[in-house]
Amino acid sequence: MAGSTFGNLYRVTTWGESHGKALGAVIDGCPAGMPLEETDIQALLDRRKPGQSKASTARKEADRCEILSGVFEGKTTGTPISVIVWNADQHSKDYSDLAEVYRPGHADYPYQVKYGIRDYRGGGRSSGRETIGRVIGGAVAEKILSALGIHFLTYAKAIGPVTAENVDPAYISQNPFYLPDPKAAEEAEKILDQARKDEDSLGGIIECRVLGLPVGIGEPVFDKLDAELAKAMLSIGAVKGFEIGAGFRAARTRGSENNDGFTLSVDDEGKPAIVKTSNHSGGTLGGMSDGGDLLFRVAVKPTPSISQTQETVRQHGDTCEETEIRIHGRHDPVIVPRAVVVVESMAAMTILDLYLRNSVDRMDELTK
Amino acid sequence: MAGSTFGNLYRVTTWGESHGKALGAVIDGCPAGMPLEETDIQALLDRRKPGQSKASTARKEADRCEILSGVFEGKTTGTPISVIVWNADQHSKDYSDLAEVYRPGHADYPYQVKYGIRDYRGGGRSSGRETIGRVIGGAVAEKILSALGIHFLTYAKAIGPVTAENVDPAYISQNPFYLPDPKAAEEAEKILDQARKDEDSLGGIIECRVLGLPVGIGEPVFDKLDAELAKAMLSIGAVKGFEIGAGFRAARTRGSENNDGFTLSVDDEGKPAIVKTSNHSGGTLGGMSDGGDLLFRVAVKPTPSISQTQETVRQHGDTCEETEIRIHGRHDPVIVPRAVVVVESMAAMTILDLYLRNSVDRMDELTK
Amino acid sequence: MAGSTFGNLYRVTTWGESHGKALGAVIDGCPAGMPLEETDIQALLDRRKPGQSKASTARKEADRCEILSGVFEGKTTGTPISVIVWNADQHSKDYSDLAEVYRPGHADYPYQVKYGIRDYRGGGRSSGRETIGRVIGGAVAEKILSALGIHFLTYAKAIGPVTAENVDPAYISQNPFYLPDPKAAEEAEKILDQARKDEDSLGGIIECRVLGLPVGIGEPVFDKLDAELAKAMLSIGAVKGFEIGAGFRAARTRGSENNDGFTLSVDDEGKPAIVKTSNHSGGTLGGMSDGGDLLFRVAVKPTPSISQTQETVRQHGDTCEETEIRIHGRHDPVIVPRAVVVVESMAAMTILDLYLRNSVDRMDELTK
Amino acid sequence: MAGSTFGNLYRVTTWGESHGKALGAVIDGCPAGMPLEETDIQALLDRRKPGQSKASTARKEADRCEILSGVFEGKTTGTPISVIVWNADQHSKDYSDLAEVYRPGHADYPYQVKYGIRDYRGGGRSSGRETIGRVIGGAVAEKILSALGIHFLTYAKAIGPVTAENVDPAYISQNPFYLPDPKAAEEAEKILDQARKDEDSLGGIIECRVLGLPVGIGEPVFDKLDAELAKAMLSIGAVKGFEIGAGFRAARTRGSENNDGFTLSVDDEGKPAIVKTSNHSGGTLGGMSDGGDLLFRVAVKPTPSISQTQETVRQHGDTCEETEIRIHGRHDPVIVPRAVVVVESMAAMTILDLYLRNSVDRMDELTK
Repeated sequence: MAGSTFGNLYRVTTWGESHGKALGAVIDGCPAGMPLEETDIQALLDRRKPGQSKASTARKEADRCEILSGVFEGKTTGTPISVIVWNADQHSKDYSDLAEVYRPGHADYPYQVKYGIRDYRGGGRSSGRETIGRVIGGAVAEKILSALGIHFLTYAKAIGPVTAENVDPAYISQNPFYLPDPKAAEEAEKILDQARKDEDSLGGIIECRVLGLPVGIGEPVFDKLDAELAKAMLSIGAVKGFEIGAGFRAARTRGSENNDGFTLSVDDEGKPAIVKTSNHSGGTLGGMSDGGDLLFRVAVKPTPSISQTQETVRQHGDTCEETEIRIHGRHDPVIVPRAVVVVESMAAMTILDLYLRNSVDRMDELTK
Repeated sequence: MAGSTFGNLYRVTTWGESHGKALGAVIDGCPAGMPLEETDIQALLDRRKPGQSKASTARKEADRCEILSGVFEGKTTGTPISVIVWNADQHSKDYSDLAEVYRPGHADYPYQVKYGIRDYRGGGRSSGRETIGRVIGGAVAEKILSALGIHFLTYAKAIGPVTAENVDPAYISQNPFYLPDPKAAEEAEKILDQARKDEDSLGGIIECRVLGLPVGIGEPVFDKLDAELAKAMLSIGAVKGFEIGAGFRAARTRGSENNDGFTLSVDDEGKPAIVKTSNHSGGTLGGMSDGGDLLFRVAVKPTPSISQTQETVRQHGDTCEETEIRIHGRHDPVIVPRAVVVVESMAAMTILDLYLRNSVDRMDELTK
Repeated sequence: MAGSTFGNLYRVTTWGESHGKALGAVIDGCPAGMPLEETDIQALLDRRKPGQSKASTARKEADRCEILSGVFEGKTTGTPISVIVWNADQHSKDYSDLAEVYRPGHADYPYQVKYGIRDYRGGGRSSGRETIGRVIGGAVAEKILSALGIHFLTYAKAIGPVTAENVDPAYISQNPFYLPDPKAAEEAEKILDQARKDEDSLGGIIECRVLGLPVGIGEPVFDKLDAELAKAMLSIGAVKGFEIGAGFRAARTRGSENNDGFTLSVDDEGKPAIVKTSNHSGGTLGGMSDGGDLLFRVAVKPTPSISQTQETVRQHGDTCEETEIRIHGRHDPVIVPRAVVVVESMAAMTILDLYLRNSVDRMDELTK
Repeated sequence: MAGSTFGNLYRVTTWGESHGKALGAVIDGCPAGMPLEETDIQALLDRRKPGQSKASTARKEADRCEILSGVFEGKTTGTPISVIVWNADQHSKDYSDLAEVYRPGHADYPYQVKYGIRDYRGGGRSSGRETIGRVIGGAVAEKILSALGIHFLTYAKAIGPVTAENVDPAYISQNPFYLPDPKAAEEAEKILDQARKDEDSLGGIIECRVLGLPVGIGEPVFDKLDAELAKAMLSIGAVKGFEIGAGFRAARTRGSENNDGFTLSVDDEGKPAIVKTSNHSGGTLGGMSDGGDLLFRVAVKPTPSISQTQETVRQHGDTCEETEIRIHGRHDPVIVPRAVVVVESMAAMTILDLYLRNSVDRMDELTK
């Protein structure tokens, strides 16, 4: 049972391989009547575009999206929205030598065992280009959420050992790492140069903050907000961990420190409102949004493609032999910067789906 | 759209509140012809039973399970297996004062906002007793997986600030914390005593190791093994983080350190076999099992119920007022020990579902 | 992949065998805040109760339902509603001779081949008692729909060769056949007596009319209103056909006859309203409700259990031999009357699910 | 919650409008390692192509399909297969006058009410061209089923009042109606000429026979083989009824006539085999295949587009007025012939999905 569809009410099916003809996504369940044009999607696709800085690969890709259905006279019609991005720059010859060798840290080996066949060109379906479909689905979700007052702030929290201590939202788009802290960006530059000289790569941490979420989003007991977010994040290639709010740190604290109290405040319209006195929960209680900002982090492993010599195996039919591999070509020494928009896209898809699911949960809402 | 069903092919629907008449689970998709009796399920339920040590609540619960359908002459028939556990010891009067007050760190507030109503007795559906349904589903899954050669080793990796440095499988069931390390168990005892004296609580970390998983389990690109596990874990109340293999530590390493090489070994039958030279991945590549042991950790927050005074809000209809709360009663000062079997149960359900899904992925398997 | 769950947003999972301990249903996705008590469900269960007339089996069953979860202080809470009916009157010894013989017209043979095992007592899961779970799910759905202004009129359109020419709603509950026409009921009585004397059985047709459905319910292109209804109906044991509006007769007409025109009328509030000039469509266009009454029919085969001698096969392990069978015991000579409430229940579940699905289809609804 | 995805394990998502840029389908869950090329799909698409006979529209459409992903070196890889057909011949101007008028018998009105917007060009998503996606999904399914020994025979059973009395498989593709009977084809020609002269249209009945299905396919109790087929068929535009085996006729028979007995035969390898003595069931018992040929019929309504004057309503914003409409343009006076391959495609998708689902139902299959 294949797993290329994400979501229940807002449902995105992605398709396409790194070196196939094209990649794309079909969005089913987009509410009707929303203004949508290709530039809405392109804006997010451009945030994942390579070739913009020393931190990312030199591969030139236009990655222009084209909407093929589901939009009429500038508005969504409620029918499936099919969006395509053609693969212009394929360079298949770069990869022909990988047909029989399993790259360490890549999905080549389990793909071959699972399916008995794999498109080895550029990683095929396990390539970073697969995220194009995710960003398409996320761009449309984010536009809908924006109309509902829900907004995202996503950035690199750490590049390798360098951690951003401050969060300056304005600075995020002004550096190639999407770091929110100039000092960290400067250090990241140095450490990345060193990794590149060492023919090595770096990982990092991405943090996402979601503002404006109403209380109660998330469906107990299995499809909780944090549970669905965790799935969404771990479904991104190279992500190895997820934590929300205090996360792993919470495991080391006491209840008296970790609990967020409740108190009264006034909302934008001057009415009394229940608020939390702190946000160690990261914005969820019992798997539902609790009124605090949603705040989570994901751990991204270092890029597995490195030009250092690595130990591996060559398989030809049933015959195997040990060998060595050096992976050359256009590879990001750190994929964190390009993954920032992917994290945001998956979060947007997840939250929109749960937002829609929440809207049929009460009898008084249905009968009013 | 409610979220009380977990899984696709092996599908478990749970129901029941802490102080309702009963709790239970319906398992649909259990393969036919497997020997199953109530003791198979009871064995796991007993592992989550309270009242066994100072680390857990004094509440006495028999929690005897009863199979109501789906088993005939000692074997599963392929029809839904309904299992029930009656709530014997309800003490509803303990909770009546919580009808209008939101306990910090609990789900009371979002439940009330989301549904406009809640069963406030003992947390209702958000009580730890909800995990009875998970353990029922997990017990059956684990028995099937065992027949397929897949086994689990789950334990407390940390109790509050105390971390187990060694893993002695035999010791896990010999201490009330399910710690795999006598030295850690001794320290945990002390630190827990102190927390109890301070009217406070502790969190911790649970680690799970899955042995015998064939290569290729997990469905790219969204329903990856690690993605589904992450969802399963974060769906457990009190879990705030998930990591696989090197996890968050991987974010700080370089590719040359983090990549696992491939080499040749011999399998049990003496045939050459591809194996990894290390297991930083925690047993998944590209979201599929990679032949290494599956190894993941979850962060559990400290028990939110503490008898210290906490700041909160009382709501009566549309009227709110600030107040204080002290939560007395039978509460585990640390829920990690009882959550160990819940983590294992959710892992078993997740893995079995993906195992079944994998079995329809190849044409040569279907036609043979 | 088992199939014991029906619906997406309003989701009902049923379980239980004819001669197991109990049968039941878990309803997930029932909107919170609706008044619900056992009598709401019992009222519909009583409509399927046997032993009320010569048309149905003499088996005495109390079939009292008990709500185990999801309702608090008389209202639904949004959590799963588990409802159970105990099997009081099991008479297992009646069926022991059927362990190795396949009853013609029953599911015994494919159950045995599919699962390699079957609970042969009273048909096990394929017994008519399985519909208890459907009626539980339908009763709750119907109560919600009623609050939304949607109502059902369901009756036997034909008993064997006898067809009701008139529809008198008041008469339906006044005869054991649930026929809406006194003349037909009288004839049905005679023809049924004859069938009983001949040790034979009858089939019939059930018609269902749904009033008050708003325009636009149904989700193109696969989950259309008529498509989901057709599935719901054919999922009922013994149903062999479904048609909506003119149905099979439409195939023989011309477009000029079959098309329903549109015209203007005034609604209850005196405002102009678009209405159809006829209702050959049976209330759906393009798979969505079109403002006309929903009107569909299902064909029910004659009860397969007859005491006449029938040709069959006895299987013991891998050994088969031809044999004859005479099925004695308590069997309805026609199941149509008892199936009326099952048809209505399945329709209610289907329509509520699509009603909820429709409520997230428009941006202007979400942002208002 | 949109409904553009069909199936569970073999899952097809279709997209596209009549006069949009393109239409297509994404197939997720196609088993890996099956030879597949565009001609496999094109062969079925050509069977639904218009312009081949007087029975179908004169619109010229190349409808060339292009595979964009999921196939590598001529074989499926287990990743999603995206297939596209460009809309070459759009003639949008023909339809601009339909923006405000609801065509009788079409989906215009409920589409407008449901979504508040519709692509009125050529029916948009409710056009017959939408079936291109279905045929793509069906072509791939049928190729897989063929490798599993399962084959289809689908034909027009009736064109308007003309019914085929005989079934000559070889003749089906030799007449424009896909009738299996030369005499019926001759009469259909005449009656269709008359309908055309009368500016009117005809309906008909399609019959499908599936050979080679193993016993036990179908998932009780809701996802039965006949239930899923019924949904599949009613999801096709213009289909108004479904029956299996004796169907509605069964409702009028007695149990002694309608039951199929069991007897012993020998299979192809000379081994004893249980077979039915007749096939009134149409190949299903209890919702599972029973070893008999699967045999079902669907009722197709007459083409709603006719050039006769029809009564309707014009809506401009909130203003409505009664009006008349005459629908000119390229419309099939009977769509039955083109729908034959659509019925077969939907059946193939349904059966493959259930075939795959069946393959995880038994423990002995999993452990062998």
